[in-house]
Amino acid sequence: MEIGSFDRDWGRLFNPRTIAIVGASNSLGKWGFVMPMSVIGGGYRGKLFMVNPNESEVLGRPSYATLADIKDDLDLVIMTIPARKVAPALEQAAAKGVRNVLVVASNFSEVGDDGAALELELARAANSLGVTIIGPNTMGIYSGSSSLFALGAPNFPLRGGVGFISQSGNLGVQLLSWGKRRGVGFSRFVGSGNEANTEVTDYLEFLASDPETHTIALYLEGLEDGRRFLQVAGSIARTKPIVVLKGGKGDQGNRAVRSHSGALAGSLDLFQGMFEQAGIIVADTSEEFIDLVTAFSSLPLPGGGRVAVLTMGGGWGVVAADACDREGLELAALPDSLVEELDSFLPTYWSRGNPVDLVGNLRRDNHFKAIDALARSDAVDMVVIMGIVLGTEFFINNVIFTLLRPLYQLLKRNAFLLPAFMRSLRQGFKKSVSDRAVSNPEGSVGINPAELWNWTDYAFTGHLRRLMQETGKPILAVSMSEHKKRGAAVASQGLFTTPTPERAIATAATLARYADWRNS
Amino acid sequence: MEIGSFDRDWGRLFNPRTIAIVGASNSLGKWGFVMPMSVIGGGYRGKLFMVNPNESEVLGRPSYATLADIKDDLDLVIMTIPARKVAPALEQAAAKGVRNVLVVASNFSEVGDDGAALELELARAANSLGVTIIGPNTMGIYSGSSSLFALGAPNFPLRGGVGFISQSGNLGVQLLSWGKRRGVGFSRFVGSGNEANTEVTDYLEFLASDPETHTIALYLEGLEDGRRFLQVAGSIARTKPIVVLKGGKGDQGNRAVRSHSGALAGSLDLFQGMFEQAGIIVADTSEEFIDLVTAFSSLPLPGGGRVAVLTMGGGWGVVAADACDREGLELAALPDSLVEELDSFLPTYWSRGNPVDLVGNLRRDNHFKAIDALARSDAVDMVVIMGIVLGTEFFINNVIFTLLRPLYQLLKRNAFLLPAFMRSLRQGFKKSVSDRAVSNPEGSVGINPAELWNWTDYAFTGHLRRLMQETGKPILAVSMSEHKKRGAAVASQGLFTTPTPERAIATAATLARYADWRNS
Repeated sequence: MEIGSFDRDWGRLFNPRTIAIVGASNSLGKWGFVMPMSVIGGGYRGKLFMVNPNESEVLGRPSYATLADIKDDLDLVIMTIPARKVAPALEQAAAKGVRNVLVVASNFSEVGDDGAALELELARAANSLGVTIIGPNTMGIYSGSSSLFALGAPNFPLRGGVGFISQSGNLGVQLLSWGKRRGVGFSRFVGSGNEANTEVTDYLEFLASDPETHTIALYLEGLEDGRRFLQVAGSIARTKPIVVLKGGKGDQGNRAVRSHSGALAGSLDLFQGMFEQAGIIVADTSEEFIDLVTAFSSLPLPGGGRVAVLTMGGGWGVVAADACDREGLELAALPDSLVEELDSFLPTYWSRGNPVDLVGNLRRDNHFKAIDALARSDAVDMVVIMGIVLGTEFFINNVIFTLLRPLYQLLKRNAFLLPAFMRSLRQGFKKSVSDRAVSNPEGSVGINPAELWNWTDYAFTGHLRRLMQETGKPILAVSMSEHKKRGAAVASQGLFTTPTPERAIATAATLARYADWRNS
Repeated sequence: MEIGSFDRDWGRLFNPRTIAIVGASNSLGKWGFVMPMSVIGGGYRGKLFMVNPNESEVLGRPSYATLADIKDDLDLVIMTIPARKVAPALEQAAAKGVRNVLVVASNFSEVGDDGAALELELARAANSLGVTIIGPNTMGIYSGSSSLFALGAPNFPLRGGVGFISQSGNLGVQLLSWGKRRGVGFSRFVGSGNEANTEVTDYLEFLASDPETHTIALYLEGLEDGRRFLQVAGSIARTKPIVVLKGGKGDQGNRAVRSHSGALAGSLDLFQGMFEQAGIIVADTSEEFIDLVTAFSSLPLPGGGRVAVLTMGGGWGVVAADACDREGLELAALPDSLVEELDSFLPTYWSRGNPVDLVGNLRRDNHFKAIDALARSDAVDMVVIMGIVLGTEFFINNVIFTLLRPLYQLLKRNAFLLPAFMRSLRQGFKKSVSDRAVSNPEGSVGINPAELWNWTDYAFTGHLRRLMQETGKPILAVSMSEHKKRGAAVASQGLFTTPTPERAIATAATLARYADWRNS
C-alpha cells in the first residue's frame, strides 16, 4: 500500500526474545486464543506477554492492561484486536521501541474505501515510526530457528530449508500442512496479508540473505512495485530456486483478488514475462506448487533432460511416456550396453526399451539392479520409478493381506478345507525358498522369501538415497498407494514421491528446465 | 487381433457357477498362486477347481491333472500357464463346452513377431470354437454380482455401478484401489490385455445392457475397429456416461503403446474426434480420470454451468476463480436477494461476492446456512465448498490438538504455569458457552461449543446429501486434509471430495459440459 523504505529489523522479527500479544483471550477459537496457543504449543523459548485490559489472566499468564505496563523490551508485538484499535496500539508499541508488529485484524483495504483509508493511515504512521507491519489481515508467521509458530491455525511445520511467503494466510497455512505430509521442511513462513507497509519483495530480500533458507516458495496475487520485485528475485533465483503460484490469472480470478486482498493483480502476461526474466519457477496449480517445492528442496538438479522410466506395468509406462510428450521431456535412448546389462538379469519379456517395463517381476533384487543400471548410465540424467516403491505397504498388502482374506473366507464358508490349505501354504513357502535362486526367464518365479528385508521402506529409501549421492542424479518415485503416514515417512527419509506418474514427469521436466536455465 | 463375431456368453463369464484355474500353484507370488488366492479371498461362492499335473493339492483343494478330469461343467477357465501351453489347454476347455477363457500369460503379441503369430493362431482357434478369450496378458476380471475377484494383484474393490474396462492390467488394478479410497463402487472390471479375439468394444456392448452398470470407465490404448467402437459407444454415452483415459498420445507415448500391448495407438486427432462425436468424457491424466469416474458415479448432473464457490479463505477463492477461468466455468452472479440473505447471518467482512469468502468464520451454523442459501438459489447450478469439510478432523486438529500441544510444552518448560493455564481454559470455555448466541459482526466470535455435533463428518455429509436430494444440484467438497480413511468414509457416505480446489472446479466444468451435451 505504502511500502516503507526504512531499515528493517528482521533479526528481531524471526528470532524474537520477547513477544506480546495484544488482544490475547481465553475464548475458544478467537484469534486472540489461537495465536498464543500456537506460540505456546510450538515450544517458543522466549518470554511471552499477554495484553488484555478486560482479563487478569490469559492462558495462565498475567494479563497486562496496555503494552506500556510491560517492563521488558519487546521484539515482536502480535495484535489480535479489531481494525480500529490497531493504530493506537501501534503508537504504544513504537513508544517501547518495538520494530515489528503483526496485525491479524481484517476489515482493512480488502473491504472497501473506508478500510483502505484506515490502512493507509496505519502504513504512514508505521513508516514514520520505522515499524514493519506484518499484515494486516495475516495468519501470522513461523520461524524454525526460534521455534516460533505464531499462526492463526494450529499447524506445526517441519523445520528445514524452505522459506515461504504467502499473500493468503489460509492457503499458506494449508500448504504448510501439505508440505509436512510430503516431508518438506520450512525455515520461515510469512503470511503477508494486505501488506500495509511491507510487501513480498521485502521478505524476499530477507530470505535472500537468510542462511537458513535454500529454496523459496511464493504465493503471489499482486505487487506494489514490479520492477523492484524483478530485481530482487532475479538476483536470488540462480542460487535459491524460487517457486511461485500466481493467484489472479483471468478475469474472474482478478475480481477475486480485488475482493480478497484489495490488490490489483495486473496483467498475467506482465507477470509471466517477469517470472521468465527472473528465472522463477511457475506452478499452474496448488498441487503442482507443493510438488515443485518438495522436489526443489529435496532433489539434486539433473545434468540434462533425458529421463529413464522404470515401471511394473506397461500401462503406467504409456501414461508416463504421454506425460513426457506433453512436458517436452525426452525418454533416454538406452545404449546397447545398457540393454545387455538389463538382459543379463531381467526375464525375457521385459520391454527392452524405455520405459523399462518389468511386467510384474517380483524379484526385489531385480528392481534394485535395474534402478542402479539406469541411474549409473551416461545416457540417463534422471530416473522415474513407479509401482515398486513403498515396499512395506506393498509387502503388507500383497503377502499378509493376500493370506488373511482367504483364511477368513475359508473360516466363514469352508472351514473343513483349512488344514489342507495350511499344508499347501507351507509346502509352497518351502518351494519358494528352495527355488529362490532358480531363474525362469519365460515366466514369473514369484517372490524370493530371502529378499524380505529389501521390501521394507528403509531398505528402499536407503538404497535410493545412496544412489542419488553416488550419481548426483535425481530419482523420482511414484508411490501410487499414497499412504499418508508412510508417504511422509519416506519423504522425511529424503525420497521424493508423487502419487501419479504424470506429476513425477511434470516435476522432472521442471527440474530439467530450471537446471538448463541455471547453466545457461 | 482377430476379433470373433460369434455370440458371447457374458452371463457365464460375469456370474460363473464353476471356475477352474489351470496352472494353479502353491508358490508365493506366482500368477498361479495370486489368482486363486484372490478368488478365495474375495468370497467367491461357486465351485473352484485347481488344475496342475505336478501337484496333488493346491491351496487346500485337490489338484486335477487336466481339465478333462473335472466332472462338472465349467463356466470360466483361468489359465496361469506359459504362453506356449495355452493353445492345447484351450482345446481341452472347448471340449468341455467352456465359452470363456481368461489367459494371464504374457509373451504374446507384445514381444514381437513370434508372439504375435502364436496369438493369432490362438485367436483363430478360439473364434472357430466360439470361445471368448479374456487377454492374453491380462490381470483378470472382477464381477460384483458374483463376488468374483479374479485379479492378479490382491485388490478388493467396493461394489457399485461403475463398469471399468482397461487395456492395462497393472494400471487398471491400481485405479480400482484408488477408486476404493474415493468410495467408488464397481460393478465389473475387465483387464482386456492383448485382446486376441475380444476387444474393448465387445465388453462395452455387454456393459451397455448390464443392469448393474450405470457409469463406464475406460483406459484405452488402441482399437481394432474404430467405427464399431464409435457406434457402440455413441449409443451408450447418453444414458451411461463413458469416461476415458487415452494412453498413447504423442510420439513417445505411441512407441510405449507398441511395446506394451503390441497395438497401434493411431492418431490422437482421430481418437479425439471420435470421443467428441460419441459424447465420451475425456480425462487428461490418471488423477483426472479417477476424479471424473468418482463424480459421474456419485453426483447428480447440473442444470447449467453457473458455480457458487464457498471458501474459508480468500486465497483459495482466488485459486478457484482462476480454475474457473481456465475451465471456462462461470462464477454465478449472486442476486441481491441472496446477498441480503447471506448478510443476515454472516459477519460484515464476508466477501459479498462469489467466491463467497467466510474469512475464517468458525460458526458451524453459518457454514450450513451459507451452503443452503447457495444451493437453493435459482442463480446457482453447482456449489463447490472448500476448507470447511471433514469436520471431525478439523475439530480434532483445531480443538484437541491445539490444546494438547500447549499442555505438553507447559509440562516440559513451565509446569508451574499449568494450574493457572487450566483455570484460564475453564473460564474461556464458560465464556464461549455463555457468548454462543452473541453476534459480533466486526470480529470473530470463536467457536460455539453447542455446535459440536455439526462438526462431525456424519452431520456434514448427511446435511449435504439431503441438500443434494432436495435441490438436485451437485455439491463438490474440497477436503484439503486428504485424510485417507476419513476421505473414504466421507465418500462412501455419498459425498464427492477432491483434495484441491482446482480439481473440484475441473470436475464441475466437465459435469456441466456433459450435462449440456446430453440436453442438446
